[in-house]
Amino acid sequence: MNPLALFSAVTVEQVKEILKKHLEGYKPEIEEANLLQAYNRVLAEDIVSPEDIPAFNRSTVDGFAVRARDTFGASESMPALLTLVGEIRMGEQTEIKLSTGEAAKIPTGGMLPECSDAVVMLEYTQLMDDTILCAEKPVAPKENVVEKGEDIKKGSVVLKKGHTLRPQDLGALAAVGIDRIKLVKPPAVSVISTGDEIKPPASSVKPGEVRDINTYAICGEVMKWGGLPLPQGIVRDNFEDLYDAVKAALEKSHMVLLSGGSSVGARDHTVKVIESLGKPGVLAHGLPVKPGKPTVVAVVDGKPIIGLPGHPVSAMVIFEILVRPIISTMLGRPEDFGGTRVYARMSRNIASAAGRQDFIRVKLEQRGEELWAVPVLGKSGLISNMVESHGLARIPSEKQGVAEGELVEVEIY
Amino acid sequence: MNPLALFSAVTVEQVKEILKKHLEGYKPEIEEANLLQAYNRVLAEDIVSPEDIPAFNRSTVDGFAVRARDTFGASESMPALLTLVGEIRMGEQTEIKLSTGEAAKIPTGGMLPECSDAVVMLEYTQLMDDTILCAEKPVAPKENVVEKGEDIKKGSVVLKKGHTLRPQDLGALAAVGIDRIKLVKPPAVSVISTGDEIKPPASSVKPGEVRDINTYAICGEVMKWGGLPLPQGIVRDNFEDLYDAVKAALEKSHMVLLSGGSSVGARDHTVKVIESLGKPGVLAHGLPVKPGKPTVVAVVDGKPIIGLPGHPVSAMVIFEILVRPIISTMLGRPEDFGGTRVYARMSRNIASAAGRQDFIRVKLEQRGEELWAVPVLGKSGLISNMVESHGLARIPSEKQGVAEGELVEVEIY
Repeated sequence: MNPLALFSAVTVEQVKEILKKHLEGYKPEIEEANLLQAYNRVLAEDIVSPEDIPAFNRSTVDGFAVRARDTFGASESMPALLTLVGEIRMGEQTEIKLSTGEAAKIPTGGMLPECSDAVVMLEYTQLMDDTILCAEKPVAPKENVVEKGEDIKKGSVVLKKGHTLRPQDLGALAAVGIDRIKLVKPPAVSVISTGDEIKPPASSVKPGEVRDINTYAICGEVMKWGGLPLPQGIVRDNFEDLYDAVKAALEKSHMVLLSGGSSVGARDHTVKVIESLGKPGVLAHGLPVKPGKPTVVAVVDGKPIIGLPGHPVSAMVIFEILVRPIISTMLGRPEDFGGTRVYARMSRNIASAAGRQDFIRVKLEQRGEELWAVPVLGKSGLISNMVESHGLARIPSEKQGVAEGELVEVEIY
Repeated sequence: MNPLALFSAVTVEQVKEILKKHLEGYKPEIEEANLLQAYNRVLAEDIVSPEDIPAFNRSTVDGFAVRARDTFGASESMPALLTLVGEIRMGEQTEIKLSTGEAAKIPTGGMLPECSDAVVMLEYTQLMDDTILCAEKPVAPKENVVEKGEDIKKGSVVLKKGHTLRPQDLGALAAVGIDRIKLVKPPAVSVISTGDEIKPPASSVKPGEVRDINTYAICGEVMKWGGLPLPQGIVRDNFEDLYDAVKAALEKSHMVLLSGGSSVGARDHTVKVIESLGKPGVLAHGLPVKPGKPTVVAVVDGKPIIGLPGHPVSAMVIFEILVRPIISTMLGRPEDFGGTRVYARMSRNIASAAGRQDFIRVKLEQRGEELWAVPVLGKSGLISNMVESHGLARIPSEKQGVAEGELVEVEIY
């Protein structure tokens, strides 16, 4: 066993650091995809714009392209009189070149003719006849114009490797002419439920037996955070079955999550199986987190194996603070990607032990301008608690509880 | 034209109300799926638990099942002496029935034997020999026990129709023995880009032409909010082409989104095409929103047709405030589902006109305990603005701007 495993009071931050070191050699697989398939996926490359966007000086209004200085001082009673020399059509390069005192009709999105630097809006103009235009308001140079390269400069980095693509990012990629991109493949995460008493949801259960909750909650979490879940079913609680299952899972995935086995005997199996599968083996056994203490953290041949607690709520808390950052790191995302964290006032006093991080399931309530976190009470083994609450309030390990009205950080599900 | 369309100053709330009335007859399609395919999907039925969960009184710790009153007054110096009558195995119904002064060994998750009502943790016990157990701490009735039905009661509604399934919800469904469920099918949303100057991203563009940004940004938004995007490509800006495209799109989808055509002429085409396709036709033309004014809102044969502005940023703002609530309503979700709204202090004075909702693109900055919204400046046609910002701050129509330090509502992307 790794010497570190002896310290059961090792902090979560230390465990994450060590895990990250072991993952330094991890190279995610890359795939190419069309832009329309890329929503919510992670970029595997920096995107540099091959062009200026827009590629030409563009009008942002319907009106008349002018030389701004020809309109200086214009007013309703004293309009600037300009000679209309033509009309610019949408999507066409114009041959028009303005001389002093000239104007050309232009639609929103149209390309400014040479030697014009501003657009007078239609509303502030009057046509005297076919060729004489009155501009009743002055425009400043560049007014109502987006200049060439003003949106995105040629050679600039539009989006960085590791960025998760939002709708506007797909738009920006289309704008610069890129419709196929390299994406990070989601890491494959095997999910194994263990326990002789665990039965699939579709089966009827005898007294003493319970249904497999964790496969479904944990596979859901893996999907939510960008991984590819590989559910491996339920494995009985003995060395041989667990060994075979974890070995097979290691071969086909980038990470293995076990859950169940909160009893002492079951956790011993997990530790023994991991130790016989390879190096470095178990890194930590027991974490100073409530709920979530009975956690086993291991790496075998560069692949993380996490033994989650059997209680669904505890398993989900450990997923949140430990597994989710690993998946993000494997995807090349920032470790804290996607978390929606808000500050809220705790609605009642909550005690906690120093040296231990506590996670309290809370409902959020907006009271006037303030957000309040109302703890959802009940034992930590209850899945209904997770269903009823909106997020987890964290009490950091250096604190001994929080007082009513104190601000706490809440991670929203 | 519908009389309502004459009021171009109609509020967004009024438009939404009218749209919702037209959607009252909309019946979403339903499909059945396995639990593992249901993450982030919408339930099409109430789920009532057919069983009590847990189905038996269950221990939450490793220890000894007892009759609580037998331990009252126990201490380290004066332990309660109990007779060990057996061991309960995981996943098995036990035949043991405790009499006064008796105890049975029990693992975490084990089923309490008849006539026991609490569990003494292993840590607070000592075995004198094979049959005599010392309990060094008293337990209250129900201590370290989850009672039958305490998590989920038989006959109670576990999750309601219209609920969007989170990981913990999948767990709760598994817990009550349900692994196939009825889900709402995503509404099909056709996305059409219009404009003679618009070219696909993969093509090279000549001066005056621009690439199709909106198909990608808007399809991304449709996916994000639970719809099925059907990109219909780019349609040229004339009555015949637009008519054919919108007619075909109406036939195969539940909603049609057009974008482009911010110039006056192009918007007139959109209105004429919609009016010739059916009733009631155009409901509003022009919205008191900035950016986003040149919006056309229509319904034909019960299906919404929204003419979004051509500027990508304006199109995304209108999507956010108008299209997203429609998709949510079609899915049976609450209209404001999934929005992450925070309150932040505006970092500078921002002017706005009364009677108009303004949406300011902002970056969020945590400064100490306070969240600040820093406006991302620049013209509204720039996609780079959307890429750089974190969300939209809303200035309600009854206000004339916000002052530096004032709290604003920010919808995070």
